[in-house]
Amino acid sequence: MPNKHSRTTHENLPLNALIDGLNRRYCHVIDDGEFERWPGFFVKDGTYRITTRWNHSNGMQAGLMFCENRGMMEDRVSALRIANVYEPHTYRHLVDPPLVINQSDGEASVQTSFVVYRIMETGSPEVFCTGKYLDKLVEMDKDFLFKERLVVCDSERIDTMIIIPL
Amino acid sequence: MPNKHSRTTHENLPLNALIDGLNRRYCHVIDDGEFERWPGFFVKDGTYRITTRWNHSNGMQAGLMFCENRGMMEDRVSALRIANVYEPHTYRHLVDPPLVINQSDGEASVQTSFVVYRIMETGSPEVFCTGKYLDKLVEMDKDFLFKERLVVCDSERIDTMIIIPL
Amino acid sequence: MPNKHSRTTHENLPLNALIDGLNRRYCHVIDDGEFERWPGFFVKDGTYRITTRWNHSNGMQAGLMFCENRGMMEDRVSALRIANVYEPHTYRHLVDPPLVINQSDGEASVQTSFVVYRIMETGSPEVFCTGKYLDKLVEMDKDFLFKERLVVCDSERIDTMIIIPL
Repeated sequence: MPNKHSRTTHENLPLNALIDGLNRRYCHVIDDGEFERWPGFFVKDGTYRITTRWNHSNGMQAGLMFCENRGMMEDRVSALRIANVYEPHTYRHLVDPPLVINQSDGEASVQTSFVVYRIMETGSPEVFCTGKYLDKLVEMDKDFLFKERLVVCDSERIDTMIIIPL
Repeated sequence: MPNKHSRTTHENLPLNALIDGLNRRYCHVIDDGEFERWPGFFVKDGTYRITTRWNHSNGMQAGLMFCENRGMMEDRVSALRIANVYEPHTYRHLVDPPLVINQSDGEASVQTSFVVYRIMETGSPEVFCTGKYLDKLVEMDKDFLFKERLVVCDSERIDTMIIIPL
Repeated sequence: MPNKHSRTTHENLPLNALIDGLNRRYCHVIDDGEFERWPGFFVKDGTYRITTRWNHSNGMQAGLMFCENRGMMEDRVSALRIANVYEPHTYRHLVDPPLVINQSDGEASVQTSFVVYRIMETGSPEVFCTGKYLDKLVEMDKDFLFKERLVVCDSERIDTMIIIPL
C-alpha cells in the first residue's frame, strides 16, 4: 500500500472515527430515552437548531427549534419530562458516517445524512424525518463536542410535535 | 495530531472496523438470500434472539424468536427452505456503524442501530422493522463471531411473519 | 492487541475508509442538488447502470438507466436541468459502509447497501428505493473513482420517474 494510505490512517481516519463515535453515542442516548445526557454532547455555549432545507437555503434564521446554550437544552429536557403532554413515542436514528468538510487544529466542520423513525406506543415505525446534520465540532479533553449542531430537515412539512431532539 | 489519535487507530478503531465488517457480511448474506451461511456468523453455542423494546426493558425472556445454538439456527434455515409456506420476499438491512460498549481481551459488547426493509415480490420496499442489535462478540481465529445477538425491535407491533432472520 | 489488528489498520481499513469517503461525497453532491459534479466521480469511460434484482440475477442487461461513459452522464444532467419536466423533488441517500469483495493493486470490487428517500416539494419523505451498489473502483491520483457503478434496486416496481441519479 502506498504511503498516503498510512497517512490517511493517522491523520484523517481517526478524526472521522472519533466524530462517528460521537454520533453513535448521541443517537443511542436519545433512542434509549436518556435525554438528560443529551446536553452533555455540546460545549457550554453550544447551539442546537432545527430548520428546513428551504429555510436554510434561503438564509432564514427562524427554525423549528433553537437552543443557544446548554442551559436551554437542559430546560427543554425538563419540559419534556415534566410539562409536555404528548403521546408516548421513541425514535430510532440511522446516521451515516460523517463527511468532514473542513478541519483545522482542534476544530472540524462536518456534514452527515440521517433518517429518524418514530415509533408510537401502538404502531409500526414510520419515517419521521430525513435530513443532514451540519456540525461544528471542537476537541475537548480527549473527545469532540458539538459547538453547533444544525439539523436541516429535507421536508418543509414537519410534524409540529418535535418533542424529542433529532 | 496528538498521540491519542494514534492510540485510537491502533486500539479502538480496528476493533470497530472488524465488527463493522462482520455486520456488513451478515447483512449481505441475508439480503442476498444465502441463508445457509447465516449460522456461520455465530460460535457453536451462540444464541440468537428477537425481542421487543418493551419485553426487553421489562426483563421478559420470551421473545419472537430464540435459537440457543447454531444447530437451531440451521434448523430454522431448513424450515425456511423446505417447510414454511410464505409469500416470497427479501430484506434490505441498513445498519449503522457499531458502538462498542465494553471490550476486554478477545471479547466485546456492542450496540448497533438497524432498519430492515421488506420487499414483497410485487411491491415497493416497506419499513419492516427498526431497532438495535445488542451483541456479545468473541474473537475466533482472525475474526469476530457472535456469541450472543439480541435483536431488540422498537415496535411492539411486529408482523408475525418473521421468516428470514433480522 | 494482536498484530493482525495493526495489519487491518494499515491495509484493509484505509481502503474501506477511502471508498466510504467516496460514497459520502457522491451522496451529498446528489442530495445537495449539485448534479453537475456527479459525472466527476467516474473515470472517463466509466459506466453507470440502474437495474432491478430480478433483471440482475437473471442476467438481463437492459435496465432502467444506462450511461456507458462520462459524456452520457453529462448529457443526462443537462437534460435534467433543461429539458425534463418533472415535479420538483430531492433525494436523501443513506448508505452503509462498504463491503470490499475483492481488491488488487489499485482496483477494488465493492458491495454497499443503500436506501434513497424522495422528498416532493409539499410532502413528507418517502422510501423511494432500496438496493445495493455493485461497484468497481480504480485508484486515480490520490483517490478512488468509479469504473462501474451498478445500482441493483430490490423492487421490480420502480417509479418510472428516475430523473436524479441514485
